[in-house]
Amino acid sequence: MAEGMRELLDRRLIEDLLADYCRHLDRMALEELAALFTADCRVTYGADPRLAAVGREALAGSLARMWRWRRTAHHLANVRIWLDSADTARAESYVHAWHERPDGGTATVFGRYLDYLRRTPEGWRIAERRMDMNGADAAFRVAIPQAPRNPPPPGWQAPEGLDG
Amino acid sequence: MAEGMRELLDRRLIEDLLADYCRHLDRMALEELAALFTADCRVTYGADPRLAAVGREALAGSLARMWRWRRTAHHLANVRIWLDSADTARAESYVHAWHERPDGGTATVFGRYLDYLRRTPEGWRIAERRMDMNGADAAFRVAIPQAPRNPPPPGWQAPEGLDG
Amino acid sequence: MAEGMRELLDRRLIEDLLADYCRHLDRMALEELAALFTADCRVTYGADPRLAAVGREALAGSLARMWRWRRTAHHLANVRIWLDSADTARAESYVHAWHERPDGGTATVFGRYLDYLRRTPEGWRIAERRMDMNGADAAFRVAIPQAPRNPPPPGWQAPEGLDG
Repeated sequence: MAEGMRELLDRRLIEDLLADYCRHLDRMALEELAALFTADCRVTYGADPRLAAVGREALAGSLARMWRWRRTAHHLANVRIWLDSADTARAESYVHAWHERPDGGTATVFGRYLDYLRRTPEGWRIAERRMDMNGADAAFRVAIPQAPRNPPPPGWQAPEGLDG
Repeated sequence: MAEGMRELLDRRLIEDLLADYCRHLDRMALEELAALFTADCRVTYGADPRLAAVGREALAGSLARMWRWRRTAHHLANVRIWLDSADTARAESYVHAWHERPDGGTATVFGRYLDYLRRTPEGWRIAERRMDMNGADAAFRVAIPQAPRNPPPPGWQAPEGLDG
Repeated sequence: MAEGMRELLDRRLIEDLLADYCRHLDRMALEELAALFTADCRVTYGADPRLAAVGREALAGSLARMWRWRRTAHHLANVRIWLDSADTARAESYVHAWHERPDGGTATVFGRYLDYLRRTPEGWRIAERRMDMNGADAAFRVAIPQAPRNPPPPGWQAPEGLDG
């Protein structure tokens, strides 16, 4: 029972951490955001070198790019956490990220965060974060990698008339 | 206390199960998805017989229809779980489901999953799933049932000017 | 351990309460919704006096305005809860709120609920709720206050070419 309790508490702490990332990002509180990561964190949102960072300071510097949006909203869902050992964990979460340009145009991405976490003396921190996406609307054009999706079996035929 | 703990652990397991449904669906991992259900599961997304299935194999076969979309993203929210007995539970959850056609057009539904779950030797499984929806954008035309909503009382008048 | 368990159970009860608000609102079950609040609750969604209410009855009466929409869907995310004492708590949550007008037009807001909660003999209840928003699409024009966002440092330059 004590073990089950410890697991539930750890998962709750990690869930809070992942939510805080979104809250700090939408507020552009980049120092607070960087403090959610380990000092030696590795973070990548895509192949463009400007979308990657090593270390807290570099991460905060890199995410300054988000000021090119006038406003953003990052909403998490489907948070899955695996405690791999007493001090290490993995997490996968979905993010619905809405962005507004200075001219009022919007761009939306349906992304995923793939994380490795580590318990440090300060608490759980994100040690590695990689982003990919299930999809995005046409106005979102950042080169985030596509999440894997199985292809249909050979000969599969689309049903007709389901979509009205 | 042991009872409270057991309830928290069961709810966590069920939450994970519901999130896994979304993750497997967006990846079109239909065998993994079907394994989240009981062997005798009953699932229905609408009155069209092609939107219903009995049993895991039929469910996986039926959901092959999702390949008509180029990409999808299913994001859960408002997950509510009621443990009715040691081995049975109900759940209601909201789903924000984004779909992209091969031509790039998108269709979005704001749905709800209404589930009965059963604890099996393999763990919690979905025994029955019914879908309805609070709403959808005009491009989404699958005939999913409308969720109930109370009508206004007689004589109700809309306020003026609230919407700018 | 007993303390950790109590905290986890309280957080679960509060999460359920916040989800129920959304479910009752989309169903326009305003009496059930009002019962989630304390009898002396203070609720405000903006500076317009018609967007504020004191007490359960006034809240139910005020939210009757939501009938001007044909359908709505309120999806929570990023729920954060702080237990301040045995009987008081604060919560912040994100809400993705979709609204459909009678003419089929839609309006979406990316809001936040900022709550004070109190444990009453009937269980946890919302004593104060304030709403602000990270953003909204152009069709949503209710005067909800803007959430705070830090400005860029002096001399900050937007990166080029990140958006395709």
